[in-house]
Amino acid sequence: MPTHPNPYKIDLDRNPANYTPLTPVSLLEWAADVYPGHLAVIHGPLRRSWAEVRERSHRLASVLAARDIGEGDTVSVILPNTPPMIEAHYGVPIAGAVLNTINTRLDATTVAFLLEHCAAKVLITDSEFAPMVKEALAQLQSAGRNLPFVVGVDDEVYAGEGEPLGEIDYEAWLAQGDPDHPAKLPDDEWDAIGLNYTSGTTGNPKGVVVHHRGAYLNAVNNVISWHLPRHPIYLWTLPMFHCNGWCFPWTIAAVAGTHVCLRRVEAKAILDAIREHKVSHYCGAPIVHSLLIGAPDEFKEGIEHEVMCMVAGASPPAAMIGGMEALGFKLTHVYGLTEVYGPAAACSHQRDWERLDLEGRVRMNGRQGVRYQLQEGMTVVDAQTMNPVPRDGETLGEVVFKGNITMKGYLKNPAATRAAFEGGWFHTGDLGVVDPDGYMKLKDRAKDIIISGGENISSIEIEDVLYKYPGVVACAVVARPDPKWGETPLAFVELEPGAAATAEELIAHCRGHLAGFKCPRDIRFEPVPRTSTGKIQKHLLRIKAGSTNAI
Amino acid sequence: MPTHPNPYKIDLDRNPANYTPLTPVSLLEWAADVYPGHLAVIHGPLRRSWAEVRERSHRLASVLAARDIGEGDTVSVILPNTPPMIEAHYGVPIAGAVLNTINTRLDATTVAFLLEHCAAKVLITDSEFAPMVKEALAQLQSAGRNLPFVVGVDDEVYAGEGEPLGEIDYEAWLAQGDPDHPAKLPDDEWDAIGLNYTSGTTGNPKGVVVHHRGAYLNAVNNVISWHLPRHPIYLWTLPMFHCNGWCFPWTIAAVAGTHVCLRRVEAKAILDAIREHKVSHYCGAPIVHSLLIGAPDEFKEGIEHEVMCMVAGASPPAAMIGGMEALGFKLTHVYGLTEVYGPAAACSHQRDWERLDLEGRVRMNGRQGVRYQLQEGMTVVDAQTMNPVPRDGETLGEVVFKGNITMKGYLKNPAATRAAFEGGWFHTGDLGVVDPDGYMKLKDRAKDIIISGGENISSIEIEDVLYKYPGVVACAVVARPDPKWGETPLAFVELEPGAAATAEELIAHCRGHLAGFKCPRDIRFEPVPRTSTGKIQKHLLRIKAGSTNAI
Repeated sequence: MPTHPNPYKIDLDRNPANYTPLTPVSLLEWAADVYPGHLAVIHGPLRRSWAEVRERSHRLASVLAARDIGEGDTVSVILPNTPPMIEAHYGVPIAGAVLNTINTRLDATTVAFLLEHCAAKVLITDSEFAPMVKEALAQLQSAGRNLPFVVGVDDEVYAGEGEPLGEIDYEAWLAQGDPDHPAKLPDDEWDAIGLNYTSGTTGNPKGVVVHHRGAYLNAVNNVISWHLPRHPIYLWTLPMFHCNGWCFPWTIAAVAGTHVCLRRVEAKAILDAIREHKVSHYCGAPIVHSLLIGAPDEFKEGIEHEVMCMVAGASPPAAMIGGMEALGFKLTHVYGLTEVYGPAAACSHQRDWERLDLEGRVRMNGRQGVRYQLQEGMTVVDAQTMNPVPRDGETLGEVVFKGNITMKGYLKNPAATRAAFEGGWFHTGDLGVVDPDGYMKLKDRAKDIIISGGENISSIEIEDVLYKYPGVVACAVVARPDPKWGETPLAFVELEPGAAATAEELIAHCRGHLAGFKCPRDIRFEPVPRTSTGKIQKHLLRIKAGSTNAI
Repeated sequence: MPTHPNPYKIDLDRNPANYTPLTPVSLLEWAADVYPGHLAVIHGPLRRSWAEVRERSHRLASVLAARDIGEGDTVSVILPNTPPMIEAHYGVPIAGAVLNTINTRLDATTVAFLLEHCAAKVLITDSEFAPMVKEALAQLQSAGRNLPFVVGVDDEVYAGEGEPLGEIDYEAWLAQGDPDHPAKLPDDEWDAIGLNYTSGTTGNPKGVVVHHRGAYLNAVNNVISWHLPRHPIYLWTLPMFHCNGWCFPWTIAAVAGTHVCLRRVEAKAILDAIREHKVSHYCGAPIVHSLLIGAPDEFKEGIEHEVMCMVAGASPPAAMIGGMEALGFKLTHVYGLTEVYGPAAACSHQRDWERLDLEGRVRMNGRQGVRYQLQEGMTVVDAQTMNPVPRDGETLGEVVFKGNITMKGYLKNPAATRAAFEGGWFHTGDLGVVDPDGYMKLKDRAKDIIISGGENISSIEIEDVLYKYPGVVACAVVARPDPKWGETPLAFVELEPGAAATAEELIAHCRGHLAGFKCPRDIRFEPVPRTSTGKIQKHLLRIKAGSTNAI
């Protein structure tokens, strides 16, 4: 403790010249100031510059402000990856409001729940989702709830079924706006910018509140973590309704890149866009990359430039890493959750991995890795002591994060917020190990661990083995109550058309790769249920298995 | 104003899991966590990994802490670009203290003034500067002032004159330290991290106080502005005592790069380092680049990789842009001041400039450009109204900055701090214009403008013309009092050896390029005085010219 007054704290306060709240809005302003004429958005035949995107975003802010929507108010959107979705990421914060992006694949009842929970003042929605949205609004109305002001987007690129909804057309609404509407910067960078509901494999969705500071830092982190060049061409295969598209709507502004919109994730559309627009970067779940690897060769013709892609979620299997290499696409494996703004860890490449064979590279790249540069910490801890587990690649613990790229908490759910932040870390609920080089590898969700005869068994470990068997295209392992062992593993398996395998053959295969106590006692051949975002719904399988912690 | 309580501010507070003060220390921790074995420092035959640099930095912090040095205390260093200078940038903040890097070219009296002004508790200094440092300490002692604890660096790479100074040898000191000493993260990211005295072309040096938040953001900004790859090889031609080396000591940690140290800026040493270590990036004043262009061809042999370089200060002349292109080096022009952590603006490249001829590229690249992505604003304003000047490339105004990459203020100088931040912007004292594309071009220091017959004349404009005359190697134009016109321009010119030019010839040359009222009335052929950092000392010339605003 210094006994003298600290001279560095005297007459050296914050003032408007030397302090600005961090907000992604400033990244849009930079792009539009410095590269006003650069191509910002491609959508079908439509082309817009950064100056135009800024104008439209300020128009959106002004029509929101005209409805008295600002600080503390929620603007919900149900939109595909189209220009209005990008504008919402800039325009809603410019108005000072909170952007709530809703998963377009949800059912009407869930959407009605979300709109009520977040007290949405405005809902911007695309014609494609009219039937679901109408039903959700009808449910709200019949329950006597407040309805949001509904704005309909009638996208010319969309040729499918549906109808424009709402009280006003989005373009007509923007036309009423002021392109020079001043930005309402947050008074405090801790103010909310977004509300993203977790897809909820169990229980009601929780509303993850993210703030300007974190969105800004993660937007910038994406640039340095992926060493993005100036002017990347970024293809929107990842839905922007997932964690604000991992903050890439703002990242692309920070480097004056080009957003290439895409309504639907289909191999031909993706590969056509990559070829035509010379796409340099895209992100997506494993399924997106699998789609491209499996696409007919003629779809891939004429793509000769290097494409960088990020894959989140499960470890990329050998077939994916090899397949992407063959395509000339360079894959980076990342890991995160909605609570940490999407990925906040990456399997950062080490040069000495290049000397390994494919199997070695798969092992190294299949890990979830290390924290992002601008995230303070990620580690794996013992649930009781909160001490880090040893770096032995074996001791299971919970993956936890801390730092500025972490949510404010869950909206209107202080109990869940407290539980999530217990012990000064954000608890992911994921289980993992740490290798001697400090890289984390996910083993399982906490709920997905099977405890058999006092031993913890990772269901992912068993699934990894099952996936190696020819013809297995999907599988999920859950706990089944057992009078002797407490629990034993039960596997649900989908085979590809024409493939044949018996339960005995699969169990024998497992015995060849796993300790006896880890092998499934039974195999059921049936479709594996998934959420709207493609996550396997193990809780439904647990119910089928009669598991005790089914919910 | 919302009449309802803001739900996004209820039960969603900061906590240790979701909030960490921004500090560059976390970038070192990331590099050492993720790339512990990667080469972090090259110095002569010495090689150190990021794990070793972290260990040594924590040792430094621990021996500082052992002397009760922490928050509010100053650690001064007088060091060339060597490993202890890099360690000071990490270790001093880890101890929670403030790093004061002193220009090694200053005279003893000035150094004594600085050490007293900042109340340095410790001084780490290199043998090379022993005579000056001894004299400075003697002056302090004879004035009855407190002396800092002096630590001497005896660098094996140094073969010149000088002697180890101080009460302990740096290496012996570190050996007493704890490599696992815990980092004292700032309680508030607004806490000071550095104190950098301006070189003071006029009056006493002012102590610019910079904070953890700004240092962190500028370190990160360097990555995105220059789109640095992972693992760059960075050569230290820029002194780290200038604005903490533009925050690059921390930037290189953020991308796990390699610091290549260099004690002395000489063409052969630079080119040898570039060849031997495959240097990918370096920064420097114009003189550094000129040195390389002018070096004998045999020094450049064998350098075939691309080298990115940043030049700050005066607009790069055509010869430099052409010369660097011929070398295969890619030049980025940046602009800033100590008060904004070094450069905070860049002449961001626009693709359509590539179609221009050399003259056009020189004109475009010769501007100081636009704000950095993470700096909130840079503009040129009318001094009276604080309104931006029109974008006409002609209307002169003062260049001002605002945003997070701006100092806390001047140490123990509230009057200067208030003046610097007047009107909500940081006043650079530089005069510039804004082109129609929004790019700023410096015209002059406010004090360097010549007002003749009511017309403002830019001394830089005249100097630019003089530099075009064969044989002119240096020149400076100042105001001379004139009974009729108020002031008229007077030029001081240095010719290269063997060159011949008369005052009449140079004035005639000016008349060919400038309006009559802008042409110098007289030319004096004599050496132009410079500061220790190579800046021309116009105030001395103004005294010679009998100018009224000489100081």
